[in-house]
Amino acid sequence: MLGVDQPVNLNLLEIPAASAAVQGVVMELNDCAFATLNRITATSDANEGFKDCNFAMLVGARPRGPGMERKDLLLENAKIFSAQGKALDAVASRDVRVLVVGNPANTNSLIAQHNAPSLPRNRFTAMTRLDHNRGLAQLKEKSGAALEQVKKVIIWGNHSATQYPDLHHATVGGKPALSLVDSSWFKDSFIPTVQQRGAAIIKARGTSSAASAAAAALDHVHDWMLGTPPGDWVSMGVSSDGSYGIPEGVIYSYRYLQERRLQHRAGIGDQRFQPRKMQATQRELLEERDGVKDLI
Amino acid sequence: MLGVDQPVNLNLLEIPAASAAVQGVVMELNDCAFATLNRITATSDANEGFKDCNFAMLVGARPRGPGMERKDLLLENAKIFSAQGKALDAVASRDVRVLVVGNPANTNSLIAQHNAPSLPRNRFTAMTRLDHNRGLAQLKEKSGAALEQVKKVIIWGNHSATQYPDLHHATVGGKPALSLVDSSWFKDSFIPTVQQRGAAIIKARGTSSAASAAAAALDHVHDWMLGTPPGDWVSMGVSSDGSYGIPEGVIYSYRYLQERRLQHRAGIGDQRFQPRKMQATQRELLEERDGVKDLI
Repeated sequence: MLGVDQPVNLNLLEIPAASAAVQGVVMELNDCAFATLNRITATSDANEGFKDCNFAMLVGARPRGPGMERKDLLLENAKIFSAQGKALDAVASRDVRVLVVGNPANTNSLIAQHNAPSLPRNRFTAMTRLDHNRGLAQLKEKSGAALEQVKKVIIWGNHSATQYPDLHHATVGGKPALSLVDSSWFKDSFIPTVQQRGAAIIKARGTSSAASAAAAALDHVHDWMLGTPPGDWVSMGVSSDGSYGIPEGVIYSYRYLQERRLQHRAGIGDQRFQPRKMQATQRELLEERDGVKDLI
Repeated sequence: MLGVDQPVNLNLLEIPAASAAVQGVVMELNDCAFATLNRITATSDANEGFKDCNFAMLVGARPRGPGMERKDLLLENAKIFSAQGKALDAVASRDVRVLVVGNPANTNSLIAQHNAPSLPRNRFTAMTRLDHNRGLAQLKEKSGAALEQVKKVIIWGNHSATQYPDLHHATVGGKPALSLVDSSWFKDSFIPTVQQRGAAIIKARGTSSAASAAAAALDHVHDWMLGTPPGDWVSMGVSSDGSYGIPEGVIYSYRYLQERRLQHRAGIGDQRFQPRKMQATQRELLEERDGVKDLI
């Protein structure tokens, strides 16, 4: 995740009820004899877990229970992420970078960010890399090309079914992807498949995406810390600076290049198809923000 | 596992009852967008799964059910591994190498080997790398050294509680490990901890070792295919050539260096403490072999 020669001190934060299980995880991690894993600390105290940390991966979230309304789910998670934001604000290294994976990831990231006012806003991100990788995989399969030939997919918006997986700038072997596939495949197959991939995985496996989400989290951190591949970009939920008409401050997924300042660069390609799709996911994010407005 | 630039075609063999779940695994693997994963085939037909394969990882085995005797467990697994050995014999690439992870791993490997008479015997191995890595982790923790300073642990014998995790040749920072730790720690703590680590993990996690076993399988294949680190060795269950008085043909764990011919090199270090410990695990392996004698 951080390179083959970067020693890592790993702090694992778990709720007290899972402290026996986390000890099992610690035992297994030690038994892996990973060359770069220097030290492991397991704790249920956020102020110990985040102490001096340079990177925080906020993976755990409350899943939706039976009969639970979306609003209840937002509020239950808001409690978790406001507490973690406060702890990050108090004890994390001043250069900390934060990845939120637990759903609803964009709004959870927003809550953590607003509860950590002493940290720069652009240090808080939400994971849409899994959606990005799903888009690459779909386009690889459709085109029959090798994965390394497939580039420049963009996931816009929320890590949810309203996201807009965009192929207007994507290339396969250097050619525009939309010159190689039917536009009906893009609109009627690619977009809904990527949007609803999480549900399809649950249906097939009987449980949520796990390995692919973990791999995407490693990819997100790797490319954020060490740079995106030349000639390509990735997707990442970041604090909007107002580009593309997205209200400033919302955690919205854009393309992300190596340098932060290039993230939102406006005016790439043909945006005629984008506005409606981008508005739907923007509207959802604003509704989510409204649902937790007392906490941010 | 095979290097950062080695494309891999992955064949997944599952029983028909798990075919929906394996499709979920395929979806997740595709969604990982791994640069080296070229093609995935999922099947429940061993002759399709092993067709032309260069490396076979036999991971699945029948776990012990309630009221199941050890002998029944051996026989149930013997059916699985004799069928897989026959399929390997019939369709695998003539350079195939086989790692058996499913327990009882050594005896399952022996069964597969005996059912694949057209393949060289030394292409069948059993995994004791997890035990080896557990030994490294214990010695790291006890000595306080960095992992890279800890070398030359040996796991002798069976991947079971009778194994002999040996520190007589181990070094920490170039110094003999047994000059740095009490011999009582070695005998009364290190040996039983490594031998019984699997049970301790189950107790803590509520489920068997998974991530650490997977990591060890990758390590086993990596070092077998690409070579062991200079100045160190690993442990691997291989077909005995009679060294150390172990009956020829038993799949027994020895130290393994880069070149196959060095695996069993006799006469390293002080063996006074070894014979009894090595005999116990050898005796168990012979009993297991006897239990499946009609199948080999």
